[in-house]
Amino acid sequence: MNTLITISYDGTNYCGWQIQPGVLTVQGQIEAALLKTYGRKIGVQGASRTDAGVHARAQRALFNLEQEDFNIPLNKIPFALNTRLPSDIRILGAEEVPPTFDPISDAKQKTYEYRIYNGVFHDPLLRLYSEHIYLPLDFSKMKLAADYFLGEHDFASFRAVGGHAKTTVRTIYSIKLFNNNNLITMEIIGNGFLYNMVRIIAGTLVYVGLGKIKPHDIPGIIESKDRTKSGKTLNARGLTLIEVVYRTDLITNG
Amino acid sequence: MNTLITISYDGTNYCGWQIQPGVLTVQGQIEAALLKTYGRKIGVQGASRTDAGVHARAQRALFNLEQEDFNIPLNKIPFALNTRLPSDIRILGAEEVPPTFDPISDAKQKTYEYRIYNGVFHDPLLRLYSEHIYLPLDFSKMKLAADYFLGEHDFASFRAVGGHAKTTVRTIYSIKLFNNNNLITMEIIGNGFLYNMVRIIAGTLVYVGLGKIKPHDIPGIIESKDRTKSGKTLNARGLTLIEVVYRTDLITNG
Repeated sequence: MNTLITISYDGTNYCGWQIQPGVLTVQGQIEAALLKTYGRKIGVQGASRTDAGVHARAQRALFNLEQEDFNIPLNKIPFALNTRLPSDIRILGAEEVPPTFDPISDAKQKTYEYRIYNGVFHDPLLRLYSEHIYLPLDFSKMKLAADYFLGEHDFASFRAVGGHAKTTVRTIYSIKLFNNNNLITMEIIGNGFLYNMVRIIAGTLVYVGLGKIKPHDIPGIIESKDRTKSGKTLNARGLTLIEVVYRTDLITNG
Repeated sequence: MNTLITISYDGTNYCGWQIQPGVLTVQGQIEAALLKTYGRKIGVQGASRTDAGVHARAQRALFNLEQEDFNIPLNKIPFALNTRLPSDIRILGAEEVPPTFDPISDAKQKTYEYRIYNGVFHDPLLRLYSEHIYLPLDFSKMKLAADYFLGEHDFASFRAVGGHAKTTVRTIYSIKLFNNNNLITMEIIGNGFLYNMVRIIAGTLVYVGLGKIKPHDIPGIIESKDRTKSGKTLNARGLTLIEVVYRTDLITNG
């Protein structure tokens, strides 16, 4: 049975999602919990390879169960795995998906959140979950700049060196900025994101907020397809994968 | 110069505020930072002795500076101390107060927040900053019950064994409950709180939410002055000291 789980985690203590020898990873912890639960190695494939320090509210991952594993009903799988996982990783749900389901290529939409604490000193209670910018940011200019990212564009200027995507064209469906007691949150929804794309867009909006880039410079930066024109890659701990959306004919909780 | 600082901290890694030999405490870290900054031991007196795991948004603490220390201007003291403190403690401000100022007895009002995550599994991103209750809570009954705590009462039923206050009479000026995506926040403002009083009131409201206690039972529990009648002491990590208020003739940022 092809099983899709929904996972929330605090990425602080992990070297990212993807399993690597000798270091703690989220995928590694989940595979270890599956081994303890089912008594054999079961490989897991994630929807998004989040980097070291990146958090998730609803990451998705796929694994296959055999007939012999069905003694644990589907709706009890989260309970079985959570008792074998550290408290910074929680399985929120499990459901059956078609045999051909692919957690990466079948994803039609993803939502990320990037958080920036804009105060003289970083907030100790948000330090693990936000970037700190101590210089004052012009929030209204950041909002103006954000709108230029909407729609289909070639995002080559917003891709980290080391990305290997076939095409750098992506579509942004929504980008919203909120400002609440010095905490600036960028919520971005798209059909997919290049390597470090969300963190570079956030870094570019910070440059706008600092006055280094003007809002109406954004279209030119996109057109240039030149990574050196966009802003800094902000740190990983400000980033949270909020949601991965699939077609409703493939899964129940689309 | 009598100097009052405002401090924010993540209490997760500390054995509380008060200095104790052989363990990490917030007071201990601040005194160590003062030693590094001024080259001699300077004792600090906190407004509230928060327990192990309790957080603070604006704790206050007092220390005395000599003429020889004045090479660091008052408004630069936070910067000087923060560079010598770990990132989970931040000094937000410093101001001069009268020589007779007492950070404990001159406090006229304190605000605390208690947070409860009410979902089947705890939220990994809130696990260090909230209590987890997995059984469904009746939020509207909790709100009804909270109102009975308003005003001046003898709170002997809501004091942990080990408290040594002269009187158990306290006044609650405000108690508000919010519910946002399974996160229940209790904000409570009073002229002072007995040992563990906020955590026991929160635990009593949880008993109301679970149906173990009815909202209109609260006055009888208060009158009984019997700790065994009230609810459980909830864990420390759900508690945050939000504010300590002083008379405006004593300090600038009352």
